[in-house]
Amino acid sequence: MALIVHKYGGTSMGSTERIRSVAQRVAKWVRAGHRMVVVPSAMSGETNRLLALAKELQPARMDAAALRELDAIAATGEQVSVGLLALALQAQGVPAVSHAGWQVPIETDSAFTKARITRIDDARVRADLEAGRVVIITGFQGIDPDGRVTTLGRGGSDTSAVAVAAALKADECLIYTDVDGVYTTDPRIVPEARRLATISFEEMLEMASLGSKVLQIRSVEFAGKYRVPLRVLSSFTPWDIPIDEEARSGTLITFEEDEKMEQAVVSGIAFNRDEAKITVMGVPDKPGVAFQILGPVADANIDVDVIIQNVSHDGRTDFSFTVHRNDYVRTLELLKSKVAPATGATQVVGDTRICKVSIVGIGMRSHVGVASRMFRTLSEEGINIQMITTSEIKTSVVIDEKYMELAVRSLHKAFELDAPVAA
Amino acid sequence: MALIVHKYGGTSMGSTERIRSVAQRVAKWVRAGHRMVVVPSAMSGETNRLLALAKELQPARMDAAALRELDAIAATGEQVSVGLLALALQAQGVPAVSHAGWQVPIETDSAFTKARITRIDDARVRADLEAGRVVIITGFQGIDPDGRVTTLGRGGSDTSAVAVAAALKADECLIYTDVDGVYTTDPRIVPEARRLATISFEEMLEMASLGSKVLQIRSVEFAGKYRVPLRVLSSFTPWDIPIDEEARSGTLITFEEDEKMEQAVVSGIAFNRDEAKITVMGVPDKPGVAFQILGPVADANIDVDVIIQNVSHDGRTDFSFTVHRNDYVRTLELLKSKVAPATGATQVVGDTRICKVSIVGIGMRSHVGVASRMFRTLSEEGINIQMITTSEIKTSVVIDEKYMELAVRSLHKAFELDAPVAA
Repeated sequence: MALIVHKYGGTSMGSTERIRSVAQRVAKWVRAGHRMVVVPSAMSGETNRLLALAKELQPARMDAAALRELDAIAATGEQVSVGLLALALQAQGVPAVSHAGWQVPIETDSAFTKARITRIDDARVRADLEAGRVVIITGFQGIDPDGRVTTLGRGGSDTSAVAVAAALKADECLIYTDVDGVYTTDPRIVPEARRLATISFEEMLEMASLGSKVLQIRSVEFAGKYRVPLRVLSSFTPWDIPIDEEARSGTLITFEEDEKMEQAVVSGIAFNRDEAKITVMGVPDKPGVAFQILGPVADANIDVDVIIQNVSHDGRTDFSFTVHRNDYVRTLELLKSKVAPATGATQVVGDTRICKVSIVGIGMRSHVGVASRMFRTLSEEGINIQMITTSEIKTSVVIDEKYMELAVRSLHKAFELDAPVAA
Repeated sequence: MALIVHKYGGTSMGSTERIRSVAQRVAKWVRAGHRMVVVPSAMSGETNRLLALAKELQPARMDAAALRELDAIAATGEQVSVGLLALALQAQGVPAVSHAGWQVPIETDSAFTKARITRIDDARVRADLEAGRVVIITGFQGIDPDGRVTTLGRGGSDTSAVAVAAALKADECLIYTDVDGVYTTDPRIVPEARRLATISFEEMLEMASLGSKVLQIRSVEFAGKYRVPLRVLSSFTPWDIPIDEEARSGTLITFEEDEKMEQAVVSGIAFNRDEAKITVMGVPDKPGVAFQILGPVADANIDVDVIIQNVSHDGRTDFSFTVHRNDYVRTLELLKSKVAPATGATQVVGDTRICKVSIVGIGMRSHVGVASRMFRTLSEEGINIQMITTSEIKTSVVIDEKYMELAVRSLHKAFELDAPVAA
């Protein structure tokens, strides 16, 4: 008898018929003797419907007071879906109870629309589990120190599920989604992409942060921090497939550098076209300039991804970074109005027509020349590299977005990701 | 500068356009110098949409666990509308904040789907008011001692508004609705029906309990208990009519037996066709029999309205009462399976094709012959009276529902309610 957390996305919860099917799947796990916690998203389309209503009425300037209301509104989507799933389980004869984030409570900070979980009190959930109930907890949301409802941002339900699994020391957290696992790259771009049976936590972290949309990055961070065994699998298999088969399906995110003797050098190709590039030009190159530029950006709660500072000429340097495209205009205005005058920068320029393509693999640690093979491949295709950033297990390049598909396909082939795996 | 509570029904909140209009009306009151609390219902149709989703999934037997989920689901409707109204006010430049029932908190008992408010903590609302914010509070819901969301039943938002007004000792509670006040009877039945400028609390209580749908009965009880000045007025006047005119419109529910020297004997005719009649026949006439019959009904959380016990013959009596039609089948089964065997009743019979018609008026206290004039009027129309019940200021009869319109019209005329009021 294990303690298992299931997470179901909005598509899996998209109609009463599908919710019934989720209930049947969960009931199967209960009958197999497991204690179950389920974290569902809102019914697909519901969060967008709510935000569209808000958009018609909201003030032009979305200050904290307005974002607070936006979160209270958006959070109701999951509050409906957990109640519906609880009823559907009860209708199957399975005792079930739902809790909103504030009822658990799932405590967060006060960064409305992108809050972070700070603590989960597991007493109430444990009491319900011990009473033999399936516990259904809203994804995507929590409660801040002032008792206000917060949301975790798009995809936040993954994070909720993993955080709940961590708090409960669950045996496994299963993320049911509309794909059947993690692929070497997006099969819509490269038809030869293969599903990975396992992927290391670190690789998954890079894949998630680089734009592979399978899992929200913070959920992977949480899983790594608390060593939550995580599995990504399909919610579109029939609910009544044998439970052993289901429990082995999808992609397992592992923590051991693992049993496979001959790991591929590169496990996957990730890409992302949600970012925009901004360059602050002609900044005096002196200590503290990076903080002078990025401090106000961070204060405005804007996430920065790639950051590059070139060597200086004549005591001045160019400072580039990428932000989410939704934050592009706001960041540019902030830099032009406040940062440039304060730092003495000569110009602030930006470009939204970029994309980031990355190769990811634990094998890169022990294999030289991986990055250079990447650069050669892109060069052979005539693709100009605008920015480069690397970590121990990944190399990312920023290129013109019109070359994205070409870059991904040629890299997938160059690193032999389409070849069958040796048994 | 007064502290005013506004309540808006679902129709007034029915679209973003209407919510904007509510925000403009509230902003007008703020600009006139008032501190404002607003209690809106869910957008019209929303509660029904949520309950319809639940109905597709819910178990056949709705036990407490299922009713709990139903309440959590239904309560989200108002949680959306308060957030939208807060945003709309902010867009008008008026600081505003929303609170769900659990955030205030509005404490209730645990009778899911028909909970009663036990206490309202006003500290949080007062702090927001003192900070210069309009406070928007969800109608229809609260939180029980175990931290679970409860709802107050249909029309519960009226009660929420009055309870909030009582807790805050508000100067007036204005109930904006789709009618422009309280009428001598329903104008759809009697076109000559007149709007009352004032009605006493006691008359309003009888009118509400007898089926006048303008206000939920519990809201009137609350208003009476805590002496909350209550006004029913239309939300369909243009939002920008002069505030003095708006503040005097509608019907004021008063507590003084009032200035009018020559009060009409009967203020209004109420009617109700939501009830069903049940008779337990041949019950041994001994002490405790009423409790034996009605105790199990109350335990099943079924509200009983008219109760009549006839004089006995041969040591046996017939015991009749009315319940809401929704509870009819359940009550009949309960009586047949449990109560009849326990009491030795010979038969349990019922009828759903009934209605209740009542005359209401404080003047009945000091005028004899009012009830007999009612009975004569019905007799002249050939309408048979099945049950009669009276109180100090009302007389009700239960008749065949097919005579309802006829009874209401002839009583309205007989008591000269269509005559113009003397100046």
